[in-house]
Amino acid sequence: MGAPTLRGVYETVLYVADLARAARFYAEELGLTPVPGLGGAGGAFRLADGGMLLLFDPDQSAAPGRVVPSHGAHGPGHVAFAVAPGELDGWVERLKRRSIEVEREIAWPVGGRSIYVRDPAGNSVELIEGEAWA
Amino acid sequence: MGAPTLRGVYETVLYVADLARAARFYAEELGLTPVPGLGGAGGAFRLADGGMLLLFDPDQSAAPGRVVPSHGAHGPGHVAFAVAPGELDGWVERLKRRSIEVEREIAWPVGGRSIYVRDPAGNSVELIEGEAWA
Repeated sequence: MGAPTLRGVYETVLYVADLARAARFYAEELGLTPVPGLGGAGGAFRLADGGMLLLFDPDQSAAPGRVVPSHGAHGPGHVAFAVAPGELDGWVERLKRRSIEVEREIAWPVGGRSIYVRDPAGNSVELIEGEAWA
Repeated sequence: MGAPTLRGVYETVLYVADLARAARFYAEELGLTPVPGLGGAGGAFRLADGGMLLLFDPDQSAAPGRVVPSHGAHGPGHVAFAVAPGELDGWVERLKRRSIEVEREIAWPVGGRSIYVRDPAGNSVELIEGEAWA
C-alpha cells in the first residue's frame, strides 16, 4: 500500500508572550479572521484557504495535563503567508501607512517576491506573491 | 480601501536540532515530498495543496547576516496536517506498522478527528480528518 497523502498544513503555530497584543496585530494589521475556541489560552485565525494560524503563550501551552499534547517554543519563529497575485504592492502601502517597518524585500530566482515584517513578539512574518520554491 | 487578503499559509516552520533525522521522518514516515533550495541549511517539503513545511536548526537560522531575516526557536513546536476524508484510519495503521507511537486521539465537537505523534525532535505533529474549529 502506498502512503496516504497529507493534503496540506491545517494549523500553523507561532509563540508569543503577550497573546492579546499579538492577536491585535494579526487581526488588525494583517486582517486575519479570529475564530473562537481557545478562550484566553491562545489566538486562532482562519485563513482564506481554510487553514488556521494559532498563537500560544509557550509557558501555558507547554504545561502538562492538557487535553491536547503539550508544546511550546521560545525565540522568534517564522511564517510566510501567500498573497494574491498583484497584491504585494498594496500590502507594502498598507504596512507603510500603519508604520510597520518592512525589514527586507526579496525577489526570488523562481519569480516570486517577498516582504518581511516582525510581529510584536519578534516572529518573522513573510508575505509572498508567487513562488519561492522550485 | 479594504485590507488585501492573506490567502493562506505558504510556509510553516518547525525547528529541529538534527536536520537529517527530522528530514527522514517527514519524508519516509509522513510521505512528504522534499524540495531543493536550502542545501544543508534546512529541510523543505511541498504539500499537496502547494504549501511548504520547512525544517531549520534554530542555532543556524538565528545567525545574523543571512539573506533572509533571522529566526529560530527552541522547544517543542506544533503543526497539524490535514488528511483526506476517510484516510485517518489508514494513517493510524501505517504509523502502527512503523512503530510510531500515537500519543493521543481526539474527536472534536465540530466533527473532526485528530491523532498526535512526535517527530524525532519532539515537535507535536497532528493529523486531522475534518474540522476542529468552528
